[in-house]
Amino acid sequence: MHPPASQPPSTDSSDVGVLLLRCADRPGLVAEVAGFIADHRGNIIDAQQHTDAATNRFFQRVTFQHGDMDLPPGELAAAFAPVASRLGMTAELHVGGYRPRVAVLASRQGHCVLDLLHRWQTSELVMEPVAVVSNHTDVADMAGWFGVDFHHLPIVDDARSVQESQLETLLNELSVELVVLARYMQVLSPQFCARWANRCINIHHSFLPAFAGAMPYHQAHTRGVKVIGATAHYVTADLDAGPIIAQGVADVTHRDTVADFVRKGRELETAVLARAVSAHLDHRVLVDGDRTVVFA
Amino acid sequence: MHPPASQPPSTDSSDVGVLLLRCADRPGLVAEVAGFIADHRGNIIDAQQHTDAATNRFFQRVTFQHGDMDLPPGELAAAFAPVASRLGMTAELHVGGYRPRVAVLASRQGHCVLDLLHRWQTSELVMEPVAVVSNHTDVADMAGWFGVDFHHLPIVDDARSVQESQLETLLNELSVELVVLARYMQVLSPQFCARWANRCINIHHSFLPAFAGAMPYHQAHTRGVKVIGATAHYVTADLDAGPIIAQGVADVTHRDTVADFVRKGRELETAVLARAVSAHLDHRVLVDGDRTVVFA
Amino acid sequence: MHPPASQPPSTDSSDVGVLLLRCADRPGLVAEVAGFIADHRGNIIDAQQHTDAATNRFFQRVTFQHGDMDLPPGELAAAFAPVASRLGMTAELHVGGYRPRVAVLASRQGHCVLDLLHRWQTSELVMEPVAVVSNHTDVADMAGWFGVDFHHLPIVDDARSVQESQLETLLNELSVELVVLARYMQVLSPQFCARWANRCINIHHSFLPAFAGAMPYHQAHTRGVKVIGATAHYVTADLDAGPIIAQGVADVTHRDTVADFVRKGRELETAVLARAVSAHLDHRVLVDGDRTVVFA
Amino acid sequence: MHPPASQPPSTDSSDVGVLLLRCADRPGLVAEVAGFIADHRGNIIDAQQHTDAATNRFFQRVTFQHGDMDLPPGELAAAFAPVASRLGMTAELHVGGYRPRVAVLASRQGHCVLDLLHRWQTSELVMEPVAVVSNHTDVADMAGWFGVDFHHLPIVDDARSVQESQLETLLNELSVELVVLARYMQVLSPQFCARWANRCINIHHSFLPAFAGAMPYHQAHTRGVKVIGATAHYVTADLDAGPIIAQGVADVTHRDTVADFVRKGRELETAVLARAVSAHLDHRVLVDGDRTVVFA
Repeated sequence: MHPPASQPPSTDSSDVGVLLLRCADRPGLVAEVAGFIADHRGNIIDAQQHTDAATNRFFQRVTFQHGDMDLPPGELAAAFAPVASRLGMTAELHVGGYRPRVAVLASRQGHCVLDLLHRWQTSELVMEPVAVVSNHTDVADMAGWFGVDFHHLPIVDDARSVQESQLETLLNELSVELVVLARYMQVLSPQFCARWANRCINIHHSFLPAFAGAMPYHQAHTRGVKVIGATAHYVTADLDAGPIIAQGVADVTHRDTVADFVRKGRELETAVLARAVSAHLDHRVLVDGDRTVVFA
Repeated sequence: MHPPASQPPSTDSSDVGVLLLRCADRPGLVAEVAGFIADHRGNIIDAQQHTDAATNRFFQRVTFQHGDMDLPPGELAAAFAPVASRLGMTAELHVGGYRPRVAVLASRQGHCVLDLLHRWQTSELVMEPVAVVSNHTDVADMAGWFGVDFHHLPIVDDARSVQESQLETLLNELSVELVVLARYMQVLSPQFCARWANRCINIHHSFLPAFAGAMPYHQAHTRGVKVIGATAHYVTADLDAGPIIAQGVADVTHRDTVADFVRKGRELETAVLARAVSAHLDHRVLVDGDRTVVFA
Repeated sequence: MHPPASQPPSTDSSDVGVLLLRCADRPGLVAEVAGFIADHRGNIIDAQQHTDAATNRFFQRVTFQHGDMDLPPGELAAAFAPVASRLGMTAELHVGGYRPRVAVLASRQGHCVLDLLHRWQTSELVMEPVAVVSNHTDVADMAGWFGVDFHHLPIVDDARSVQESQLETLLNELSVELVVLARYMQVLSPQFCARWANRCINIHHSFLPAFAGAMPYHQAHTRGVKVIGATAHYVTADLDAGPIIAQGVADVTHRDTVADFVRKGRELETAVLARAVSAHLDHRVLVDGDRTVVFA
Repeated sequence: MHPPASQPPSTDSSDVGVLLLRCADRPGLVAEVAGFIADHRGNIIDAQQHTDAATNRFFQRVTFQHGDMDLPPGELAAAFAPVASRLGMTAELHVGGYRPRVAVLASRQGHCVLDLLHRWQTSELVMEPVAVVSNHTDVADMAGWFGVDFHHLPIVDDARSVQESQLETLLNELSVELVVLARYMQVLSPQFCARWANRCINIHHSFLPAFAGAMPYHQAHTRGVKVIGATAHYVTADLDAGPIIAQGVADVTHRDTVADFVRKGRELETAVLARAVSAHLDHRVLVDGDRTVVFA
């Protein structure tokens, strides 16, 4: 039933699947899932789990090599369905080699866009950036240099809903799977947020929940903080209150002006957003109510 | 007028004075102050300054050796007074070797008390801890072991004002110059806060202004943050809103329970409070409205 | 075979066992181990694993509730032995509620001793500190205050081997299971290190492998580093080259003297050593050749 | 002699000069320098100083507004010369608005080049990047996109000295004032290092002095460290031993492969190099033997 490996397992990542599971906790879950994979001759590379003590919800992320399995990758989900059903699990299966289609939204500042596209160019972020979209044109050349289509969607006559609707049409036409708000300075409607729940990541330039809303660096400077922060979170209808994926901080002193906060913040925002996008693309994030489980 | 030093300056710290200055900024201030010290044959060891861009207020901290000056330490303040007056400066002078009288207040938890007294015992904190005061008796033995008097001031029949008044009588009798709230879990009255303005340091177990008020680790856990913090600040009538002296943070993950936040927080609170107390005792903190200048 | 839990699992930690495993990697390992626990009605709380890519060695740490298992805790190891044997595993089983017997060794400085005993006093470190041992007497009172026996083992006439042999006799008489070198400034013999392999943790006051050997803060200051470090590692015959468990760093500037490095270092050493001791006591550390696997 | 400012000082940075001083320490230095500036109606914005306790060398950095001075900027250096001479000072004066001419050298990897040019593009780094030079062509397009000339200087037939000499000719033709080795993977000759002393900054991908030389991330992985680092330093003939300007670190775990070290390292190298280049361009770095003074 569990034959020894005759040779070292392949490490081709196109051969590595990810299984994301959630259900009410109960004994035997780990054994059931591991048993399924072993029975079909898959090899578990990593398995991480978490039980929310308050809700008793169980979360698991299993990575496994499916190259030598007795099922083709395309049939794995169907084969696992009865197990999931019996255990009351919600299961999500990602087979290796797929590159999610991503739209990057920005306004005038380009530091996050530049960083994300560079990490894509160096294969650090495994995604297909299908569009850079902005209500301004400042980052158009940058997108062009990376060979990514740029779309200018200006807000005309203060008609935000018109522009948002153009945006959503575009995202749908391009079959976008993840929207990254890379310092996109427009508030999205609750309807948009609901439709893109858990598929739209924003970077807010403060250590949330401190300094939600507009001009957080000004707020932070006025309050006299000694540490500034940045927060990457899934967007929800409740502005700046979505589930947090990653946070980072940087020391500041009385010498730092608001302009210094902005400058230090650029480095911080860039790093924190990249960390969150990377975790999402690796299927390491599971939303647990207002919070997230982010596996290592 | 500026004779060369015939020998290397003494490094006995009892010989090192600190001059703290504040006034409206204008050209020539640095030269005036440095000139005064040089004219009296003092040697400037370090001089740091800051101008608040919004208010144009100038702040300066000068440390200097006064052992070879042509004035005894006790007469320096009077000699500088005309200079300060001419320049519209508020000046504060501290001559070397003095140990401020400090009261440490706690409730049940002793980690901050233990750390502060250990840093005093190893000469890291230069102070005279004249009392440990608590509304409980948990830290009594600890104070005793360090040879510091312990005072138990319980809150009887919910009569907080009675206890606060006993506390203030004690602080006055002991000529306390600095009150350190080392996880003291009682709210002090606005009157007390006003009387001890800039002389009473609290450690709050969150990254203020996030999670002010009660049970911040619970609040932080509910919000799903990925970084927790601690904030040391001067106490003001406006709870948890006083000028911030120091802040620190620690990473947390979904694996961390509220109990883990509390545990990680202890280390954080201890370190951040010690940093703030050390800065205050070294005369490195100047309050600038709602903010602080903390020199290096 | 995997009966559902009829009620939420107990969270009494005296009921939580830890299984540490290592073997050559092969498919099916996770399923086998999880299956064993589930078959005996245990509930896996957490399971973490790691495969060393270079050596193909598999490491796993499983925590599980054994209160409702169909075997008493004392029989679990024997029951698992055939599974381990069949899979070529080295297995280590720790049932809940046990407190390892620990000796803390120091020289003159007490900051690490104080911190470890305080964390024990507040139940953060689950251990039985059976002795504080030193070649000096500076920390005798501290041990006494915590109610831990103090042993003075001075080095007389430079006879280190005599003293080391007294030390080892004492450790054996007290059935010590973990030795913590909490700034113990004596070099131990290769024989001692071999006998206490993976059971003796040292804190070195540098960022190893930089500045191994004597006076690391002086070395670091001379080199002009901008960050100092501390390293907790298992002791081996090769001085300061044992497997690293934890490292921490602190920023320094040109303003910091060697004395400042020492002062900042105390806080760092304290925190890093506590982190390593905590990981060891929780059975989260597995030695992998010259390196360690430290599970979260 | 010290007339009050009739109006708030200008904040145009083209009006801000920097005076860098070094000499043997003696009383009165601060007063002399401040007096010179005040006498000529300049306004000191910031003054920082440092005395090396071991060598008794005094270092000072003074920033001041020279727009209202009674001397044109071009004559300040000559006016200060007698003061410097009398006090035995080495003085360096930089008047506002000047952009140093910088050459950025790379090999195949572009992350540091991209970051430096983006910080220039956003006005964070005040410099004139006159050339990107590489022994490969990978970063040619990147330089082109930023509008910076690219020079390809391949190493032909292993003739490193020929290439180095072409490089130096180019640097001289372009009147380069600062050379930044942005992951340039060639060792420079001792003669080159000597000629560019304190004007050539390298980023080494380890926490020096640990893991000097080739393949530091491999070395670090083999040693099993828990923290990796990056070090920016002035280049000297002694490889990786030059005066350190900035260092940064990132946590790693047993999960991280060498490839993960490389990936995390890119972010680290980028940030640390930018910090060092920024400090150099701001005239905040003074070399003190094998160490640096880096003012805030």
